[in-house]
Amino acid sequence: MAADQDPQQASHCAADLAAQFGLELRGDGTRVVRGVAPLSSASEGDLAFLANSKYTSQLATTGASVVVVRDSDAAAFNGTALIAKDPYAAFAKISALFEAVPAFEAGIHPTAVIDASASVDPGAMIGPLVVVGARAVVGVGARIEAHCFIGEDCVVGANSTLMPRVTLVTRVRIGERVRIHSGAVLGAAGFGLAMENGSWLNVPQLGGVVVGNDCEIGANTTIDRGAMGDTVLGDDVRLDNQIQIGHNVRIGDHTAMAGCAAVAGSATIGRYCLIGGGAGVLGHLSVCDKVTITAMSLVTHSIREPGEYSSGTPLMDNGEWRKSAARFKSLDRIARQLNRIDRDE
Amino acid sequence: MAADQDPQQASHCAADLAAQFGLELRGDGTRVVRGVAPLSSASEGDLAFLANSKYTSQLATTGASVVVVRDSDAAAFNGTALIAKDPYAAFAKISALFEAVPAFEAGIHPTAVIDASASVDPGAMIGPLVVVGARAVVGVGARIEAHCFIGEDCVVGANSTLMPRVTLVTRVRIGERVRIHSGAVLGAAGFGLAMENGSWLNVPQLGGVVVGNDCEIGANTTIDRGAMGDTVLGDDVRLDNQIQIGHNVRIGDHTAMAGCAAVAGSATIGRYCLIGGGAGVLGHLSVCDKVTITAMSLVTHSIREPGEYSSGTPLMDNGEWRKSAARFKSLDRIARQLNRIDRDE
Amino acid sequence: MAADQDPQQASHCAADLAAQFGLELRGDGTRVVRGVAPLSSASEGDLAFLANSKYTSQLATTGASVVVVRDSDAAAFNGTALIAKDPYAAFAKISALFEAVPAFEAGIHPTAVIDASASVDPGAMIGPLVVVGARAVVGVGARIEAHCFIGEDCVVGANSTLMPRVTLVTRVRIGERVRIHSGAVLGAAGFGLAMENGSWLNVPQLGGVVVGNDCEIGANTTIDRGAMGDTVLGDDVRLDNQIQIGHNVRIGDHTAMAGCAAVAGSATIGRYCLIGGGAGVLGHLSVCDKVTITAMSLVTHSIREPGEYSSGTPLMDNGEWRKSAARFKSLDRIARQLNRIDRDE
Repeated sequence: MAADQDPQQASHCAADLAAQFGLELRGDGTRVVRGVAPLSSASEGDLAFLANSKYTSQLATTGASVVVVRDSDAAAFNGTALIAKDPYAAFAKISALFEAVPAFEAGIHPTAVIDASASVDPGAMIGPLVVVGARAVVGVGARIEAHCFIGEDCVVGANSTLMPRVTLVTRVRIGERVRIHSGAVLGAAGFGLAMENGSWLNVPQLGGVVVGNDCEIGANTTIDRGAMGDTVLGDDVRLDNQIQIGHNVRIGDHTAMAGCAAVAGSATIGRYCLIGGGAGVLGHLSVCDKVTITAMSLVTHSIREPGEYSSGTPLMDNGEWRKSAARFKSLDRIARQLNRIDRDE
Repeated sequence: MAADQDPQQASHCAADLAAQFGLELRGDGTRVVRGVAPLSSASEGDLAFLANSKYTSQLATTGASVVVVRDSDAAAFNGTALIAKDPYAAFAKISALFEAVPAFEAGIHPTAVIDASASVDPGAMIGPLVVVGARAVVGVGARIEAHCFIGEDCVVGANSTLMPRVTLVTRVRIGERVRIHSGAVLGAAGFGLAMENGSWLNVPQLGGVVVGNDCEIGANTTIDRGAMGDTVLGDDVRLDNQIQIGHNVRIGDHTAMAGCAAVAGSATIGRYCLIGGGAGVLGHLSVCDKVTITAMSLVTHSIREPGEYSSGTPLMDNGEWRKSAARFKSLDRIARQLNRIDRDE
Repeated sequence: MAADQDPQQASHCAADLAAQFGLELRGDGTRVVRGVAPLSSASEGDLAFLANSKYTSQLATTGASVVVVRDSDAAAFNGTALIAKDPYAAFAKISALFEAVPAFEAGIHPTAVIDASASVDPGAMIGPLVVVGARAVVGVGARIEAHCFIGEDCVVGANSTLMPRVTLVTRVRIGERVRIHSGAVLGAAGFGLAMENGSWLNVPQLGGVVVGNDCEIGANTTIDRGAMGDTVLGDDVRLDNQIQIGHNVRIGDHTAMAGCAAVAGSATIGRYCLIGGGAGVLGHLSVCDKVTITAMSLVTHSIREPGEYSSGTPLMDNGEWRKSAARFKSLDRIARQLNRIDRDE
């Protein structure tokens, strides 16, 4: 890659951006953009965006050279604008111009340890100190960064990326254009136990993990392999950091889960669900499509209607909270006392 | 291992299974089993099991060749059955016949880095890119997979397995037949802080971690070493993924904890406890034997009676939840209002 | 280091400790201390401390040779005492005499893989199988343990320690005297998504992570890099294990967070805050200085007053809890029923 193409040095004029991304230009097409910034802190040379009309007032004071904005908000801005139906999505695509992507160099680093029975496409990149196990397959265009472990019978699809120190334990099959972040562990044995004569017995975990195309899996997230059959993520599933997915879970296409969420074994999550940070789903439950679970809620029964669901109590001053919490313990008595009065009255 | 012994190719007839596992055979002893599957999706060649009488109706329609079943449920099944007192435990043992266990080859991989003062038994297996530190000891039959780190003064007992990328930081002593999953970190410095003149001071963490025999420790689980004395897990303790165990915690024999549970420093958990997913135990508390904590509950006081304990509120439609949550904030006022009316009446 | 300086063999007399740490000695200055232990289990040769007057009765029975104690508690002790204004802080400093710190040997282990454009100070220590990427800088006195990954454009300040298997993905700048524990991942791409035509679009994460001086970051903790601008930790920030910090979060000086806490994207936490284990802070919120959040509470709105805040319900016997939980669902109806009666009366 030539030095003048370094994305951190890139500059683009507003007219070129409009043409490249199919946006309408309003104002001075010669304005130059060299980076991106939030509206509130942007200065000369920055591209910013307005997606939420609540912040329209920031348009009057922003130092941004160019702003991506909805047609309906554009009137509030005197500067150079790019008009987009969805300013956030348009901004996301433009800002990729300024992303420094490390060089891709096909080939196997000399310190990598590759099993003789593994199959690595000549168009894949294997970084330093990577281990690839027996019968594993790495597809064309795959980027396997340093310290990754690709265990026996795993498959990494074309153009997928394993960031440094990802572990695929065994029988993990990754689709195309998937990105897995550092510290993630896929394919560890699920937590299957039977009690016999007062001691635990391991239930063999014979299945694998299947991840569809275009998924993202966050740092230090864990996805266990199935006991019988596989743990399955559909296409375009997006998992944030430190998520735990139990064995034989199934997650539908386009579902996104925020950090520290957890899904217990054999639960099924639908398509286009949004699972909030730290939320939990108990085992063997079903959650239908288009369900939103708010942060740190616990799903204790199957959900059959799309919508938003919550559990928990509001944040309070600790002194006040202690009073409410103490009353919670006698809530049933309170309700019965009330019903008695109501009847007596 | 000869190719015809590959467990993924294994086949066993029902009569042989009955004899090998001490089960009663009913039906056709020549039926052949080549794998395992759930009752509902099993087909020709599969072994299935029925542990929960709730699903007895599936016996009529299953395609399984052989089913492991309790005597009392067997009448509902026309096919070939293996009668077990505990069908799940019997199934767990049989299904191990179909588990592909990677080859064990004693010896040290040439890319491993072993300190001159470490002691590795010739009957242990040390995988690629493993680091073994000063004075560490690895016992006979231990399997140390790729990318593991065994720090100074650590001990791995006989026949224990460290899956790829396990870290034993320092002074971690692992018993026999223990299995630790990828990404787990044992023996990091506990979180000990003292405030002095407005800044934090580290409290040295001088202890270690002791793990008994037959334990299992999940992927990305962390167990800190003790401040003074050790953090201690008994025998047959089973920890799922992403569990956090603080310094000087003690966990009794046969206790099992589900994913994302956390135990704060110096807490003591008894024997045969079941700690649900995402549950928390505050520091310095004691939990007696045979306590069950439901998922995402917080243990805020010591527990002295066996039983099941919970905290939290039920999952609700978000609109309804908002109303209840708002009322929770004035629960004390509501209770006092009620008591006043009750007195006035 | 000479063998007689091995901290595990160290011995110190009470008078020397008093002089070295500026404490008042009461009793026999020739008493010898060879290690530390809790008051309740200490024996001959141990130093113990009493910080909480609740445990004063243990002074009568402790076997400790020397006890660090507040002046006001000293009367209850007949043995040799070191008088400290803050016994816990004084004890922390003394006990460092007994900490075994692995040898520091400047230089680069032959198995490390260092990019030609990286800059490693000759006074830094780079352990086995470490990878250092393009343009990374490692300062004097830095200790980089085995299996660490220091990605492109990362900086590790002077005298900082990366324990085994830490990952700095890219654009992570670590201050001086910072300690990062095993399995931590800093600088992974934040979770930024835009929905377009029914599919998720990645929002490039162009920023980095900045960690101030004297911070501590726990095992398997994750800190994502900023989307625009950086994720920032101030000085002396203390993070326990398995904490998740989203992109563009800012955490003020001297704030400490217990295990499994999580802060969502773009939230700002003040100085001297204490965030309890498993607590959560939603995105884009502000928490002012000197706020305590109790364990497993969820911060759902910005906090502008110092103090202690909580959410959740108390732990109860499961049978009782079920009754309260069921009533919680109709709390709004209960409150309205009560108000109606109150009016009618």
